[in-house]
Amino acid sequence: MKVGFIGLGNMGQAISGRILDGGFDLIVYNRTRSKAEELEQKGAKVADSIAEACAGRDVVFTMLSDDTALNTVVDGGLLETLPEGAIHVPMGTHSVAALLELKERHDAAGHRFVAAPVLGRPDAAAAGQLGIVPGGDQQAIAELEGLWQAIGRRTFDAGSNPAGAAAVKLANNMVLGCAIEAMAEAFALTRKFDVEPAVFNEVMTDGLFAAPAYKVYGGIIANESYENVGFSVKLGFKDSNLVMAAGQAANVPLPSLNVYRDTLLEAFAHDEADLDWAVMGRVRARAGGLD
Amino acid sequence: MKVGFIGLGNMGQAISGRILDGGFDLIVYNRTRSKAEELEQKGAKVADSIAEACAGRDVVFTMLSDDTALNTVVDGGLLETLPEGAIHVPMGTHSVAALLELKERHDAAGHRFVAAPVLGRPDAAAAGQLGIVPGGDQQAIAELEGLWQAIGRRTFDAGSNPAGAAAVKLANNMVLGCAIEAMAEAFALTRKFDVEPAVFNEVMTDGLFAAPAYKVYGGIIANESYENVGFSVKLGFKDSNLVMAAGQAANVPLPSLNVYRDTLLEAFAHDEADLDWAVMGRVRARAGGLD
Amino acid sequence: MKVGFIGLGNMGQAISGRILDGGFDLIVYNRTRSKAEELEQKGAKVADSIAEACAGRDVVFTMLSDDTALNTVVDGGLLETLPEGAIHVPMGTHSVAALLELKERHDAAGHRFVAAPVLGRPDAAAAGQLGIVPGGDQQAIAELEGLWQAIGRRTFDAGSNPAGAAAVKLANNMVLGCAIEAMAEAFALTRKFDVEPAVFNEVMTDGLFAAPAYKVYGGIIANESYENVGFSVKLGFKDSNLVMAAGQAANVPLPSLNVYRDTLLEAFAHDEADLDWAVMGRVRARAGGLD
Amino acid sequence: MKVGFIGLGNMGQAISGRILDGGFDLIVYNRTRSKAEELEQKGAKVADSIAEACAGRDVVFTMLSDDTALNTVVDGGLLETLPEGAIHVPMGTHSVAALLELKERHDAAGHRFVAAPVLGRPDAAAAGQLGIVPGGDQQAIAELEGLWQAIGRRTFDAGSNPAGAAAVKLANNMVLGCAIEAMAEAFALTRKFDVEPAVFNEVMTDGLFAAPAYKVYGGIIANESYENVGFSVKLGFKDSNLVMAAGQAANVPLPSLNVYRDTLLEAFAHDEADLDWAVMGRVRARAGGLD
Repeated sequence: MKVGFIGLGNMGQAISGRILDGGFDLIVYNRTRSKAEELEQKGAKVADSIAEACAGRDVVFTMLSDDTALNTVVDGGLLETLPEGAIHVPMGTHSVAALLELKERHDAAGHRFVAAPVLGRPDAAAAGQLGIVPGGDQQAIAELEGLWQAIGRRTFDAGSNPAGAAAVKLANNMVLGCAIEAMAEAFALTRKFDVEPAVFNEVMTDGLFAAPAYKVYGGIIANESYENVGFSVKLGFKDSNLVMAAGQAANVPLPSLNVYRDTLLEAFAHDEADLDWAVMGRVRARAGGLD
Repeated sequence: MKVGFIGLGNMGQAISGRILDGGFDLIVYNRTRSKAEELEQKGAKVADSIAEACAGRDVVFTMLSDDTALNTVVDGGLLETLPEGAIHVPMGTHSVAALLELKERHDAAGHRFVAAPVLGRPDAAAAGQLGIVPGGDQQAIAELEGLWQAIGRRTFDAGSNPAGAAAVKLANNMVLGCAIEAMAEAFALTRKFDVEPAVFNEVMTDGLFAAPAYKVYGGIIANESYENVGFSVKLGFKDSNLVMAAGQAANVPLPSLNVYRDTLLEAFAHDEADLDWAVMGRVRARAGGLD
Repeated sequence: MKVGFIGLGNMGQAISGRILDGGFDLIVYNRTRSKAEELEQKGAKVADSIAEACAGRDVVFTMLSDDTALNTVVDGGLLETLPEGAIHVPMGTHSVAALLELKERHDAAGHRFVAAPVLGRPDAAAAGQLGIVPGGDQQAIAELEGLWQAIGRRTFDAGSNPAGAAAVKLANNMVLGCAIEAMAEAFALTRKFDVEPAVFNEVMTDGLFAAPAYKVYGGIIANESYENVGFSVKLGFKDSNLVMAAGQAANVPLPSLNVYRDTLLEAFAHDEADLDWAVMGRVRARAGGLD
Repeated sequence: MKVGFIGLGNMGQAISGRILDGGFDLIVYNRTRSKAEELEQKGAKVADSIAEACAGRDVVFTMLSDDTALNTVVDGGLLETLPEGAIHVPMGTHSVAALLELKERHDAAGHRFVAAPVLGRPDAAAAGQLGIVPGGDQQAIAELEGLWQAIGRRTFDAGSNPAGAAAVKLANNMVLGCAIEAMAEAFALTRKFDVEPAVFNEVMTDGLFAAPAYKVYGGIIANESYENVGFSVKLGFKDSNLVMAAGQAANVPLPSLNVYRDTLLEAFAHDEADLDWAVMGRVRARAGGLD
């Protein structure tokens, strides 16, 4: 299977590496060519244009930062050059609207389309430990089985609607945002009754919430180590807008989303946009008169 | 150490059994005497009155369903009969206000006071697997070490404010309510994009949220098995009011709490108050036009 | 018609004065007797006890600050002494639960019961300009027609459920709280785009919102004159809890109420509880990074 | 002063008519030329292109339905053709971001820029009764004094930031949305206690809320006459998104906005998007188990 890969940020590089390790014929493209060097040394071809990365390929993956970047690539050669019947697999976190529009354009061009957002960070990607959530053309998803196995640890079938794959990714992000907001409120409340944050954190993560989401973010809030940024307020807010747009597209009120989105906005208003989004803990403490 | 135990519901019976197994001199009391029979056979003395369960005891535990029941016991003989220097340990889920008021009354009476809510269900209690969150007189907490070990798996020191112990328990419950609400919204959103609930549930509980709270409640929402009641809307709502009262006492806004509390109220309005509180999933689905 | 009146705060004195001016036989009672002096000089009898104010009366009005004060009066002689068939008319702002419970007790005692909260401040009361919202025994409401005319400007029939009268008063207060919150958010938003608060206030009150609620509170927020207290955060919060309890009793989610209640709570947390409740304007400005 | 006017919907036609009546030299343009006929008969010139409507004009007003339409006109000849020093006055309801971007483009082109949203409906516009909120170049605003007088009843100076004018309009809309939501909740609450909606409506609009916003929308909710559409859910939701975007641009959390926006979204989910946005009353009643 001939594979193209466009977008070599940290995630893109890691996933491309896995594809290469899987023995696939791979050509990569990145606007800034230097990011392709390591892959080139490992055996990847490097395209000089989007078109070159798409021509004659059975499947082209894109891993781009947002809808604008995705559409720029699509309009900059992908749509025009991808062979009939070939598959485009956007792996980034995109809006449901952008994916649905893109599906229509690919349908019209005779392409197949599978959205496949991933769960996990670059280090998980490099280790082949990503979760992959493909949604779209079911036949295409089946044909890509070897690639899913090369890339990740497990796939979750989101069904035949590519927007469903995005919704799964976004909803999962939303559940995390809600959990951080809840923790932020809980720490503020218990602090007011003289409870050591570390103690509340232990109670919480000892039982019901013995999971990474709570261990990681509970720890950050307990330690107020917001400067050590894993995922920033800015990125969290950007994602919250994608969730909100999905809720709008589907006519689903998401009141918990509103709550943490407002907390993030309040962080923006207090020059905390570049801190870890766990800084919701500080926003909530401040609302309660702490600090 | 001479121990009294008042309130022999499922939790009270299980904890009393642990105390007895730990070799302590135990006298128990319950308004309905029949609930004491099993313990009596195992060697517990059974008191005919609250006063009898408190007289000459070093420590008296109460495990009562709410503030009203607690105050009824306190006024019905406990406060009057408990020896000077003895310790009262309420283990139920109570309001911070009730505990703070009770602490003052015990202080005035020369008693010591330790609130010690527990984490876990009756089966965990019977197996000695509870988490215990004692808060209050630090010397008393230390003296009770043998009892904590007999009763539970682990203690978490909430500090010297008994209201802090209640706040920890309530905040932990709140975090759970928020998680269920978030799941409810997430399932409604993904369903609208044709995603199988079971698939979203797998994604969610595979990684970030691989913890009992999500596995249990995600499963219930995915299966819509709300009739199989582990914890009802009514009980969840009752607890949400205690959390709200704690927020009020501490001047801490809790916007996420408001969200799930309203969802529970909407369940009441649709004759779903006796279902499992995971029925928030149905309320949110309905808001999104599903069902 | 023989009238008793219990509770001579500012409102009680003003309303009693109107009843006296209406030519009714009036006996008044207040815990602090000195507040009855002015009325005594105008011709009112002054009772030395609650019982004396109720004995032989056709109707007894109470104007008390909260449920506790009301129940203290009821238990302190009113229930026992009021003649069979006589009418008790609580005019204060009370919870629906307290009124419903009280109705049952009066029913059992053979009394008639009409809740009649009023709309307006003491100066309006003194001028006979109150709005009155009677709810309860319809026959009794009709018999009291002369008194309604003496007291107020207009009556609004809340129906035969006394809790309905309370709900009308509370809902009206809630609509006001929501309006202040909305203004608070709107001023914060427009200030961020360099708009003079006075200008936004003029736009708002020029057309759609040319009503006292907006003129009064828009003016306070525009001028940030929160120290000039017409109605404090504390009182607003107390009322918000009554609204919340009504929503709970009726199983009606009130998400807008939650929003302004939390804003008031945030004011408490910042030592603003004694300021005018329009200080929501400052809380919202602060959330937006202003000040 | 030579005036151009682009966009002849109901509002555009009415405002153009006022300008013509004011004796100004007016050329109008609309994509569908037929809408210009009435104005032509009254003496307006009719342009065949955007460019023709802008060439040689001192000021060009646009009254367009949204940002997309506005940018289409700007890119379709306005920016290119408007003389140096001339003024562009968008009067529609636009996002702050679109206006700020447009201001930059006009600055670069040597134009002056004044955003001037209006308050009032087409019938008010035809009667010269609009409120006008100009914001931007203060010198330009002063030069346009004669036009403001021809068009409206009153101007409110939003300051030198054109986004401020949009913020005023949007914030005023938001205050209205919040008021409708509050009424919706209040009617649901009082109905649950057997209060006639018409009675609550009278109480509300008799005093504090004796203003058009409450009289109009209170009446609709009391009568449940949602099919008689003055302003639809769709339009209300569209505006709510503009308010949300303004809050995002300014980093101001707007929790009350979230509440009514979600209520509108719930209306969408129940096939009520084409009803009057007062149908929030029905959504809230449904949440409370009514209907």
